[in-house]
Amino acid sequence: MPASPLANAPLSPMPPRPSLVDATIATLRHQIASGSWEVGDRIPPESRLAEQLNVSRGTIREAVRVLSHAGMLEVRQGDGTYVRRRVDPGECMRRIDRAGLREHLEVRRALEVEAARLAAERRTEADLSRLHSTLEVRRALEQAPDPDSDIPLEHFVDRDLQFHLTVTDAAHNPVLSELYGLFAESIRRHIVTALRDTALPDPRHEAHLRIVDAIADRDPDRAAAAAAAVITPMIEALDGLLFPSP
Amino acid sequence: MPASPLANAPLSPMPPRPSLVDATIATLRHQIASGSWEVGDRIPPESRLAEQLNVSRGTIREAVRVLSHAGMLEVRQGDGTYVRRRVDPGECMRRIDRAGLREHLEVRRALEVEAARLAAERRTEADLSRLHSTLEVRRALEQAPDPDSDIPLEHFVDRDLQFHLTVTDAAHNPVLSELYGLFAESIRRHIVTALRDTALPDPRHEAHLRIVDAIADRDPDRAAAAAAAVITPMIEALDGLLFPSP
Repeated sequence: MPASPLANAPLSPMPPRPSLVDATIATLRHQIASGSWEVGDRIPPESRLAEQLNVSRGTIREAVRVLSHAGMLEVRQGDGTYVRRRVDPGECMRRIDRAGLREHLEVRRALEVEAARLAAERRTEADLSRLHSTLEVRRALEQAPDPDSDIPLEHFVDRDLQFHLTVTDAAHNPVLSELYGLFAESIRRHIVTALRDTALPDPRHEAHLRIVDAIADRDPDRAAAAAAAVITPMIEALDGLLFPSP
Repeated sequence: MPASPLANAPLSPMPPRPSLVDATIATLRHQIASGSWEVGDRIPPESRLAEQLNVSRGTIREAVRVLSHAGMLEVRQGDGTYVRRRVDPGECMRRIDRAGLREHLEVRRALEVEAARLAAERRTEADLSRLHSTLEVRRALEQAPDPDSDIPLEHFVDRDLQFHLTVTDAAHNPVLSELYGLFAESIRRHIVTALRDTALPDPRHEAHLRIVDAIADRDPDRAAAAAAAVITPMIEALDGLLFPSP
């Protein structure tokens, strides 16, 4: 391992210590989360924060960079640094990752039902062709449900989510696509674990084809019902596993 | 302004230059977004990355800290740094902020309808009492719709969202609460602008009371319909503004 560039400069100021930067991030985040600094407020300048928190300006600068990247702060050149959000999106997704499969499936259903409904209203011919091709890729992998198969479970789950992302894109709502795309990574992790460990029903090709058919027919209610029918049996099966009937 | 701690140490190594850290963040993010590094992969060690990108290890370390905080990377002490997500939550929320009001309202409706439905199934007496008190706070502010009133528009929108967050919490699904809480900040920004600039119908107390009554009666379908009835008129009015009928 090459020597650190600091190895020959013992008298120079050390770069910010990780724990100090993390502690500074936590302090600044608390100021925002607690409402001491409100959305739209300009935060004190670097020099004042460094003095108040008794850390170097480099440490403040690094903490501000982390929180700006996260979207909680916004640095406006030549003006100052402003509070942009109260909730840290990265922290939020970490908390979501820690929640259970059932909770994920309920939110998945809400988003996928709305996506299918809007897609039935707005889909183009190009959307329809993409829906058919992603569904075909999904079907091909479904033929190999053998646990000893060469196709990793992750690969099948990816292709399944790719189909649902295509439905979402056919809704032509960028907010829905972004939020579903962000959430899909949490779903992926949970679904892979679930399919590996439990006897959840794995919704089949026909159930997915019904979503595409309803979208093709421009029938929003049927599309919404078909989307719900893919997720609801998984939720019910999960309830059966958690609370088996006597 | 106090002198930088580096002012008296001209021969010491400079802290990472911001632009260099940002460029390194962009490079690492591209590796992940493009799939060159997949979710679950261990990324090369700091020293190798520093060599490959021709930057200091401090710069790599700072970039990794930003991406770890964002949730794209995960540093496992004594092991290495792993890819955890392909999508950057902070970037995702920035893209959502740039989308339009109509797109926000559609996703808002999807989440609020599901929240109202689940709340009607699961609400406790404590939830119901919280719903009544947040609704009362909202109603008190609604009495002052005068644009010259002392109550800032942001304050009313906050109280309105606080009511909908309470409905969401009564659904007892932490994933829904987290996702709605994250998204509510984007909604807030858009609604404040919309109410200031346009003649959108501002859903009144009675429409909100119908959500609470249906939740109190444990009637999921009526709760879902009442939640939709709060948002749908805003979407229709917006369409009327965008595409006025002749």
